[in-house]
Amino acid sequence: MLLYHDPRAPNPRRVRVFLAEKGVAYDTIEVLIADKAHQTPEFRKKNPIALLPVLELADGRVLRESMAICRYIEETQPGPNLFGEDPWERAQIEMWNRHAELELLWPISQVFRNTSKFYEGRIKQCPDFGQQMREHVTERLAWLEGELGKRSFMAGDRYTVADITALCAIDFGKPSQIRLSAELHPNLTAWYSRVAERPSAKA
Amino acid sequence: MLLYHDPRAPNPRRVRVFLAEKGVAYDTIEVLIADKAHQTPEFRKKNPIALLPVLELADGRVLRESMAICRYIEETQPGPNLFGEDPWERAQIEMWNRHAELELLWPISQVFRNTSKFYEGRIKQCPDFGQQMREHVTERLAWLEGELGKRSFMAGDRYTVADITALCAIDFGKPSQIRLSAELHPNLTAWYSRVAERPSAKA
Repeated sequence: MLLYHDPRAPNPRRVRVFLAEKGVAYDTIEVLIADKAHQTPEFRKKNPIALLPVLELADGRVLRESMAICRYIEETQPGPNLFGEDPWERAQIEMWNRHAELELLWPISQVFRNTSKFYEGRIKQCPDFGQQMREHVTERLAWLEGELGKRSFMAGDRYTVADITALCAIDFGKPSQIRLSAELHPNLTAWYSRVAERPSAKA
Repeated sequence: MLLYHDPRAPNPRRVRVFLAEKGVAYDTIEVLIADKAHQTPEFRKKNPIALLPVLELADGRVLRESMAICRYIEETQPGPNLFGEDPWERAQIEMWNRHAELELLWPISQVFRNTSKFYEGRIKQCPDFGQQMREHVTERLAWLEGELGKRSFMAGDRYTVADITALCAIDFGKPSQIRLSAELHPNLTAWYSRVAERPSAKA
């Protein structure tokens, strides 16, 4: 398997952490967004809409979208279950993975796109929207702080794909100065330690 | 089963269309966003982040997030398969469902939130961001027009959950004057007729 990725982008990292948890070996090709390598005609043959990551199988089939890739890995590779063992657990994990994605990763990415120096001149930035998304994340972290008082991991009492998404989201807040605070977020801070200490977090 | 929904919002409609395709009977409670009914303390007991839809099972368990609900229905109810029959088909459908969601439904929703009269005074609107998302949708429709020349439905040669998401997205473009054009989008227009003609589209 071959993963097209950018080491600094959050969605490719979700897949790398997932593959590390599964213990799956794979090759990589770096496609650096900073160099606009994702927008070349060559890469657009792999993904016409110029998004990372992309997984290429040994037979040449190509899969886009981080969660489509992770689901395929979940079903075709051995290793720990990360999407749920029965319909109700699968639904719970899907719910919390989507919360982590839509309430954290997505708005945090929008803060970066719309307010960072990195994107200045690359896209038409809307700083007002970035600011709103920053406030949205503040609210959602306050909510999740309460949730993580009830259990050890995002979706229950074990580590799942929802923790991978939330970890990648929180870490991608760093360049926008979005951080957990030990004072405001003791439960989230303890959760973060649990997931960031795993060897897979370095992937 | 009890579905908390707003008849005019696109995410609850995804679940209603899905349930109609499955032929599943269910009760509904209307939670009208126009009346701010989703923001009451009572509804926040069902969903603390005030989003629709919410599914309540007979035993009182509650599930949020349209795709978590649809996956649970897929696994626990008979009826046609809408998420894929094997790992590769499931990965393809997940990929196209996410494309329909992230490249159509989500930006179309942002156009509405940031430029509509409906949201004036309800949220702090960023019309510039709305305009950018409008341009994004125009580009993505041009891409999907080519894709739908290769096959009859979003994810392949049969109707799946990816068509439900794309249908609800296109229809939610109407209040923002985002429409398919028979001239620019002949393939998408033909696809739209195929999915909009199904009885489930009225759900």
